[in-house]
Amino acid sequence: MLSVKTPEEVLALIKNEFSPMAETETVSLSSAMGRTLAEDITASEYVPDFNRSTVDGYAVRASDTFGCTDAIPAILPLQGEVLMGQGAAFVLGGGCCVAVPTGGAVPEGADSVVMLEYTEDYGDSTIGVLKSAAPGQNMIFRGDDVYPGKVILQKGRVLSAKDIGALAAIGRVQVPIVKKLTVGVISTGDELVPPNVKPGPGQIRDVNSPMLDALLASFGVHVINYGIVIDDEALLRETVEKAIAQCDAVLLSGGSSVGVKDAACRIIESMGSLLLHGIAIKPGKPTILGKTGNKPLVGLPGHPVAAYFITKLFVLPLLSQLMGRTEAVYTTTAKITENISANHGRAQYHCCRLERKGEELYAYPIRGKSGLITTLAGTDGYFCIDRDCEGLPQFAEIQVTITQGD
Amino acid sequence: MLSVKTPEEVLALIKNEFSPMAETETVSLSSAMGRTLAEDITASEYVPDFNRSTVDGYAVRASDTFGCTDAIPAILPLQGEVLMGQGAAFVLGGGCCVAVPTGGAVPEGADSVVMLEYTEDYGDSTIGVLKSAAPGQNMIFRGDDVYPGKVILQKGRVLSAKDIGALAAIGRVQVPIVKKLTVGVISTGDELVPPNVKPGPGQIRDVNSPMLDALLASFGVHVINYGIVIDDEALLRETVEKAIAQCDAVLLSGGSSVGVKDAACRIIESMGSLLLHGIAIKPGKPTILGKTGNKPLVGLPGHPVAAYFITKLFVLPLLSQLMGRTEAVYTTTAKITENISANHGRAQYHCCRLERKGEELYAYPIRGKSGLITTLAGTDGYFCIDRDCEGLPQFAEIQVTITQGD
Repeated sequence: MLSVKTPEEVLALIKNEFSPMAETETVSLSSAMGRTLAEDITASEYVPDFNRSTVDGYAVRASDTFGCTDAIPAILPLQGEVLMGQGAAFVLGGGCCVAVPTGGAVPEGADSVVMLEYTEDYGDSTIGVLKSAAPGQNMIFRGDDVYPGKVILQKGRVLSAKDIGALAAIGRVQVPIVKKLTVGVISTGDELVPPNVKPGPGQIRDVNSPMLDALLASFGVHVINYGIVIDDEALLRETVEKAIAQCDAVLLSGGSSVGVKDAACRIIESMGSLLLHGIAIKPGKPTILGKTGNKPLVGLPGHPVAAYFITKLFVLPLLSQLMGRTEAVYTTTAKITENISANHGRAQYHCCRLERKGEELYAYPIRGKSGLITTLAGTDGYFCIDRDCEGLPQFAEIQVTITQGD
Repeated sequence: MLSVKTPEEVLALIKNEFSPMAETETVSLSSAMGRTLAEDITASEYVPDFNRSTVDGYAVRASDTFGCTDAIPAILPLQGEVLMGQGAAFVLGGGCCVAVPTGGAVPEGADSVVMLEYTEDYGDSTIGVLKSAAPGQNMIFRGDDVYPGKVILQKGRVLSAKDIGALAAIGRVQVPIVKKLTVGVISTGDELVPPNVKPGPGQIRDVNSPMLDALLASFGVHVINYGIVIDDEALLRETVEKAIAQCDAVLLSGGSSVGVKDAACRIIESMGSLLLHGIAIKPGKPTILGKTGNKPLVGLPGHPVAAYFITKLFVLPLLSQLMGRTEAVYTTTAKITENISANHGRAQYHCCRLERKGEELYAYPIRGKSGLITTLAGTDGYFCIDRDCEGLPQFAEIQVTITQGD
C-alpha cells in the first residue's frame, strides 16, 4: 500500500523516477521562442567584430585631448569620416581625429570617441575638442559583447525574446531544441458531457479537459485529447493503452468516483508501476502517479480546482523534468485581506485576486468548495498555507504565485 | 519642440492619445487561450444544475442524524441508489437514506451527505450513521458555482486556462474576443545585415528585429516584418506608408544614426503627429512616438537592450491599450548582491539574474554597456532605480519584474 506523500516528497519522486528525454530537433530562429534549449550555445565569433562607437562624434587618441577645456580646446585635423556599415579603411594618425557615427567603426589607432556635443567644427578641416577624453570612452571594443568560446545560453533554458536576440547576434539561425512532448488527456466519468452539450439530469460539462488542453498547450506541449470515456474498465484500459503508445505522458482527468479511481490504479499497475497514491495537499489529495518505462501516467482529481493545482504544482514540473527544462517559480508579496484558517497536516492552496492600493498589494482569498470552477476563473494567483501553519491573521504577508496567463 | 517625458508621463500620454480598437471576432473555446475578452461573460444557466454530492456516501436529512454517535448510530433504511450521471428520480423519504457517489445527484428532500467512512452497512438494507450531519454538509447546491446572470469573466481579461475551464462549465464554446492586432516591424540602418549573413567590415547583425518579432508574437499579436531598410529617407517613407496601411501599429527599430532618427521624425510628422521625442529613462532615451489616426508609430532606440526595455515598458502597454486589455504587472522581492550607483534625473533599468539561497532571493545586476545583447540574454528579470534615487547599497531590497518568458 502506497502512503500519502507530501508535496516535497512528490517532487523528489518525480526527479528520481523520470529522466530527461534525449530527443532533440533543430528549428529556425523564428520558431525557437518558448522552446527548451537542447545544448549550451557557444559563440564562434566576435560581436561586434570591430571597435564600435556608441555616440556620434570624433574618434581620437585620448592622450591627444588630455588637459583640453572649453577655453583651451585641443585642435585636431580631421583625417576623414567613417561611414555607417563600412570598415574604417585607415589608421588614425597621431594628433588627428576621424568623424564616426553612432554604431560606426572606430579606426585603428583611436582609443576613444568624443561626443559631438563636446567638439567644435572650425570649418577648416580642424576640430576643437573641448573636454578631455578617457581611454575607452564611448566605445564598444571588438568582442566586448561576445567572443569565440563564450557560453551565451545554457542547455535547458526556455528561450525568451532576449535569448532570440542573442542567438541572432551570433548568427545562430538554426537552434538545437528539445522535441515537443506529446501529452494525452483522457476524461473519465459517466456524468460528463462535452462543453457544447447541454447537461441532462445528473450530468455536468467536462471542464477539466478544455482547461488542461489550454494549460498544456500554453506550456509548449502538443496535446492529444481522447475525449470522454465512460466508467468501463475495459474501455478505459483500451484508451490508456492507445494513448500511452501515441504520447510521452498521459493524464486521466475526472474519474471522481471510487470505481474509476480503482480502475485507473489497476490499469497503471498492470502497465508498469504505481508510484504514488495520494498527496498531502488540499485540494488535490486523490492524485495517482505511475509510469510505464519513462512515460508518466497521472490520475488527476475530478474537481477542477484540484485538477488545476495538481497540474500546476506537479504535472508541469514532471513535464519539465522530461524536457530537461530549467525554470524557476517566483512569487509576489501581498497582504491577505482576511483571517484564514487551515487544516493541520495538509498544505492548503487558495486562489486569490490581487488588488493594488497605493504602495500595498492585497490578496483577496477566493473562498468556495473545491468543485467550483468559479473559485478559479478570474483569479490572479494562488498562495499556500503550510501544513504546520494553523492559519493566517488578516494583513499577514503571503507569497503569491502569479497565474495570470495559466 | 517636444520635451523629454518621464515614464509616467509617457504612460499617461498613451492612455490619452490612443483608444481601444472596436474590432472583435468570435473563436471556438479551443482557440481562445491568451486572447482578450471582448465583452463580459454572463452565465445563462445553473452550474451545477442539480444538488451534487462532493463525497461517496449517503444522502440524508441532517435532522434524522442529530445526536447520533459511534455508540448510538442513527439507523436509516436505504431507499435506493443514485447512479453517476443520472438524475435522482425519487424524493428522499423521512428517516431514510440514499446512496450517492462523489459528483452524483442528491435527491430532493435530502439536505446533506454523510461520508461512507462515518456509516456502517448492516447488510439488511439499513445503514447506520455514526456521526451527526450538518445541513449542507458535503454538497454543492444547484447554482452554487454559477447562476443565470452571474458575471463570470470581465471584458478586457486575457483568457487563462482557468477561464477556459469556466467558459466550458457554462457551455460558452464560442468566445467573443478582440481581433489580433497586426504590428509592422521595420529595421533601419546601413550597418545591419540579417542574422543569417556574416557581417562584413563595420557591419553587425540585426538583433532587434528577431527579438521584437518573438516578443510581439508571444504577446499575441500578428507581426509583419518589413526587413532592413537602408538609410534613405524616400525608401524609408515608402516602407512606413506601406506598413501603416497594412498594420495597426508600426515599430521602427535600429536607426541609431542621427540621419535615420531625423528622417523618422519628419516621416511621422508628415503622416500624422509626433507625440513624444525622448523618455527620461536609461537605457532608452532616444525614443520617438507618433500617430496617424489611432495607429501608433514608434521609433525605438537602436541598442538592443534599450529597444527591449522600451518595448516592454511602453510598446506592450500601448498595444494593450489598443486591445482594451487589462493586465497587471507584478514584481518579486529580492536582495541586490552589490552596490549600484545611479544617474540623477533618469529612471535607470537594469537586467538581473536571480538566485535563491535558502529563504532569500538574490538579484545579480548585469553590468555592461547598453549596446550589448549579452547583458540581456540569459537574465531572469529587471529592476528600476527611480530617478530620484542616488543608488542602492548591497543587500538592499528591490522589486524585480520577472521576464523569464519575454
